[in-house]
Amino acid sequence: MDIILIYSGGLDSTTLLYHLRADGHHVAALSINYGQRHRWELVAAQRLCHALGVVHELVDLQVLRPLLAGSSQTDCTVPVPHGHYTDASMKATVVPNRNMLLLALAGAWAMSRKADAIAYAAHRGDHPVYPDCRPVFIAALREALTLADWHVVDLITPFAHLDKTAIVQRGAALGVPFAQTWSCYDPQTDPVTARPVHCGRCGTDVERQEAFALAGIPDPTEYAYVASL
Amino acid sequence: MDIILIYSGGLDSTTLLYHLRADGHHVAALSINYGQRHRWELVAAQRLCHALGVVHELVDLQVLRPLLAGSSQTDCTVPVPHGHYTDASMKATVVPNRNMLLLALAGAWAMSRKADAIAYAAHRGDHPVYPDCRPVFIAALREALTLADWHVVDLITPFAHLDKTAIVQRGAALGVPFAQTWSCYDPQTDPVTARPVHCGRCGTDVERQEAFALAGIPDPTEYAYVASL
Repeated sequence: MDIILIYSGGLDSTTLLYHLRADGHHVAALSINYGQRHRWELVAAQRLCHALGVVHELVDLQVLRPLLAGSSQTDCTVPVPHGHYTDASMKATVVPNRNMLLLALAGAWAMSRKADAIAYAAHRGDHPVYPDCRPVFIAALREALTLADWHVVDLITPFAHLDKTAIVQRGAALGVPFAQTWSCYDPQTDPVTARPVHCGRCGTDVERQEAFALAGIPDPTEYAYVASL
Repeated sequence: MDIILIYSGGLDSTTLLYHLRADGHHVAALSINYGQRHRWELVAAQRLCHALGVVHELVDLQVLRPLLAGSSQTDCTVPVPHGHYTDASMKATVVPNRNMLLLALAGAWAMSRKADAIAYAAHRGDHPVYPDCRPVFIAALREALTLADWHVVDLITPFAHLDKTAIVQRGAALGVPFAQTWSCYDPQTDPVTARPVHCGRCGTDVERQEAFALAGIPDPTEYAYVASL
């Protein structure tokens, strides 16, 4: 199939990129700069696509910032919460309607290119905090997408029933260069190398560290702070 | 209710703006510059909102043009077809996934502002050509929208069961300044005043002229060409 992947440069969507290609699909990747605090992920996305020879469309939508106020990820006045994803405070990281926006853009590109499907790396661990990662949301959006154009585009989420530990295991089997993926919501600068490193404290970093530990796979990520799991 | 209206500055959405305000709702309007050939409509939208004191957010998404190739409305190499909307050739004017994109953006703004609903002026005459105006699409998208955030935003389409003639009649009763609304997909320049005028030949102009004629209401629009209905 010809697939448009919504691609953040993170652990989940990079593993999905490798997974789809290993299954023989042709994949083009779409990344969005919506003014996210962690837009270092976009550099990671570009580098990873370039290394694979994957077509990568990076769209600058920072003009949307006024519409997306109130999230710690788009509003510098709202601090990034620390701790595990299941904490209520993590709701501050929800970007309003982000997934519908990303899916609508990927859908537009897919319809324009006559691609067969769009894919994104929703997974089982997402649901408690992010309403637009829940299976009921995905099912409704998939229905809308298939009705939106005479050229029918499907929505596939191959990792919907996996947790992050299983994704790490799948990624390891596929040879995903984990050290080059970017998860952190609150990038820090390494005082020696002046390079960005994962903070190690935000929800996505805690989950990343936990997933490697539970998967029994060494975590190659540079963290400013390593959580005691 | 606090409502975000997807607002093009055209006849239908301007009548909906007046309709919602007459029903006592607080309305903020959202318009998108997606590089449409007929972006003169955005100037009309701004002027009409300003006259009413309505908050108007105009978002420049021309960066999306590469994703929306192949439509006569976003690709200058594709000519605007002439004739009635029901002609197959009018499919050239379909902008891929446009309505999902607009609804996703309006949804994001509504969630961010904690508004109650988003509204758009889908109407009965839209369906034959535009897949993303069909009631089945609207129902599926409404379902996805209400699931996309913990703050539930509804989607309302008060004109879904009206045709354009009925909308003109409703607009006339509400005192909509029709001459200031903009419908045309292929704006022409008046050779004397150098001002933009409706072409009179594109599908939306043919339908506009027809709706005024059927409604028995004088059409105040300046056309470069008047169709024989």
